[in-house]
Amino acid sequence: ANTHKIAVIAGDGIGTEVVPEGLRALEAAAGRFDIGLEFEHFEFGSCDYYLEHGKMLPDDWFETLSGFDAIFYGAVGWPDKVPDHISLWGSLLQFRRHFDQYINLRPCRLMPGIKSPLADREPGDIDFYVVRENTEGEYSSIGGKIFEGTERETVMQETVMTRTGVDRVLKYAFDLAQSRPRRKLTSATKSNGISITMPYWDERVKAMAKGYPEVSVDQFHIDILTANFVLHPDWFDVVVASNLFGDILSDLGPACTGTIGVAPSANINPEGKFPSLFEPVHGSAPDIAGKGIANPIGQIWCGAMMLEHLGYKEAGDAMVSAIEQVLADDDKSALTPDLKGKGTTQSLGEKIAAAI
Amino acid sequence: ANTHKIAVIAGDGIGTEVVPEGLRALEAAAGRFDIGLEFEHFEFGSCDYYLEHGKMLPDDWFETLSGFDAIFYGAVGWPDKVPDHISLWGSLLQFRRHFDQYINLRPCRLMPGIKSPLADREPGDIDFYVVRENTEGEYSSIGGKIFEGTERETVMQETVMTRTGVDRVLKYAFDLAQSRPRRKLTSATKSNGISITMPYWDERVKAMAKGYPEVSVDQFHIDILTANFVLHPDWFDVVVASNLFGDILSDLGPACTGTIGVAPSANINPEGKFPSLFEPVHGSAPDIAGKGIANPIGQIWCGAMMLEHLGYKEAGDAMVSAIEQVLADDDKSALTPDLKGKGTTQSLGEKIAAAI
Ligand SMILES: CC(C)[C@H](C(=O)O)[C@@H](O)C(=O)O
Ligand SMILES: CC(C)[C@H](C(=O)O)[C@@H](O)C(=O)O
Repeated sequence: ANTHKIAVIAGDGIGTEVVPEGLRALEAAAGRFDIGLEFEHFEFGSCDYYLEHGKMLPDDWFETLSGFDAIFYGAVGWPDKVPDHISLWGSLLQFRRHFDQYINLRPCRLMPGIKSPLADREPGDIDFYVVRENTEGEYSSIGGKIFEGTERETVMQETVMTRTGVDRVLKYAFDLAQSRPRRKLTSATKSNGISITMPYWDERVKAMAKGYPEVSVDQFHIDILTANFVLHPDWFDVVVASNLFGDILSDLGPACTGTIGVAPSANINPEGKFPSLFEPVHGSAPDIAGKGIANPIGQIWCGAMMLEHLGYKEAGDAMVSAIEQVLADDDKSALTPDLKGKGTTQSLGEKIAAAI
Repeated sequence: ANTHKIAVIAGDGIGTEVVPEGLRALEAAAGRFDIGLEFEHFEFGSCDYYLEHGKMLPDDWFETLSGFDAIFYGAVGWPDKVPDHISLWGSLLQFRRHFDQYINLRPCRLMPGIKSPLADREPGDIDFYVVRENTEGEYSSIGGKIFEGTERETVMQETVMTRTGVDRVLKYAFDLAQSRPRRKLTSATKSNGISITMPYWDERVKAMAKGYPEVSVDQFHIDILTANFVLHPDWFDVVVASNLFGDILSDLGPACTGTIGVAPSANINPEGKFPSLFEPVHGSAPDIAGKGIANPIGQIWCGAMMLEHLGYKEAGDAMVSAIEQVLADDDKSALTPDLKGKGTTQSLGEKIAAAI
């Protein structure tokens, strides 16, 4: 069989604890479905690397990683060591931009055995994707400060949207909506307040919709959309949003399903010209790092998304089913404390790997 | 007694239905507490006015309204008649900017008799304010489009933060936190992604905090902050945020308490140099407009905030108590359909006025 080269970057904090369990699950799936995976580990992309080298990545990171089929990332950031805007812009955001991972995809789904903070919701009620633009928009680094240190001090930062950038994320989202049974797409806007870029976004949504007569399209301003995530999460199927709005919605969505600690996220270059990157939504969690109690499900679910991206949908589905099976199991002893269990990162990882 | 001149703009849709009930409640409170209120009604600031005059406001709106002590607004916007970015930028956003209403204040509170979408939360559990910067930030109208109509089409929009603008909203929020029993302030940021303006915001928060040693301060990135509104709404006391983030949080907060249809909002010029403006969070609601079933509580609660702003805290509190008393009443017949009653806008308004 074809062998896929996977770059593994554990990163900071609990990243180093959950990544081994992600790999354990991937190996189990690779064994069962006869998939060739080859892992290579890297130290860079972590705050400790920064403290030693004065930068988050080596100068040749682009060449080094270009040859891989995917990047399996733990978590990056440790504000007491390195300010977030340095650690993140020096790693994750470089990958997104230079490997043109213009899609950020996150599932929002009620899982068995995980309590939702919302009243009266059952598994099956909530099951949607947030498709986030991942390379431009509000995350530009264009801008600056004038009259520094005086009363007139003023800072500016530019939001930049290009037709190419907007259209390609919309196309991905429309294709995804088209492939799902409900065929429904919701666009996040704020054209009533952000009066230049957001009306443009809406205009491109309208233009793209013409090519997808079977997809039903609606749009909400981001303020009321966040409200509707809480009030009517069952309304959504595929939600498409700009970089910032997608960032917000793809944390809020998993929060509404109670899965923020276990949700995965995929940073995808759909053409496969560059490696795509898979990392859990949770961060490095300095408060629980080093205790061996971090929940590894997000990392394992990332492995599932990675296999699906590499063309092994059946194997990815099997990994998600194994997670659901373990969560639904009456015996909670292997689960981590956040799931009201008495287990560890490793015991939960082993149980899921065994289920695969 | 001193007479306060109030400009009344009913605006669009259900604005025209709920404003009379707001006035009824205000008159009841004015009678009971012997407050002099004089109302003058204006047709402008509505989409119908726009269709007739080609603009949302007459040229002399600034002079006309400057003489008033407050503006009591219903709702503006009716997308089928006038695009939102025209109707809103032509009215509400003009008032905010030219009357320097730099504070947008919204209470988020669980009310008796109103079902929260969150599981296991009781009145008393959630009670906080969102303080939103209301004149600058992400809502600048600076920017434009280049290479229009081609593949290279690019749009840009500038976020602008000034030291004056940031410091004064922070000061208001810190003062408010200082005056409340919990003395807790939470700042919304996104300095890990929005790498220029947001680190500046954080810097000003740190500087301002030095003057308030008794206020405990924390901060969250906006993505996880929205998640925490759902997961831990009891954490919050006063939340301060930029224009866009405040817009989002002040819809999401009331959504979490189930009060989005009844929440008020105050656009305040704290120095009283210009009139402040009070409008409910709900919009013009084209879908139910004209049916006489819109819930007037948001408009009445706005009246309470207005009286408090004019210096009548006791009267404002009495209006809020009257709302709570009517909501808690076992007899639901006068309530509007959204509250599972069989009543109308008017029957609910009358019941609250009677309770005042
Ligand atoms: C209507 C719109 C421009 C406005 C805003 O975004 O400020 C509204 O959402 C609000 O919060 O008052
Ligand atoms: C860490 C941060 C820069 C990042 C983002 O905002 O994109 C994170 O919140 C995410 O969503 O992956």
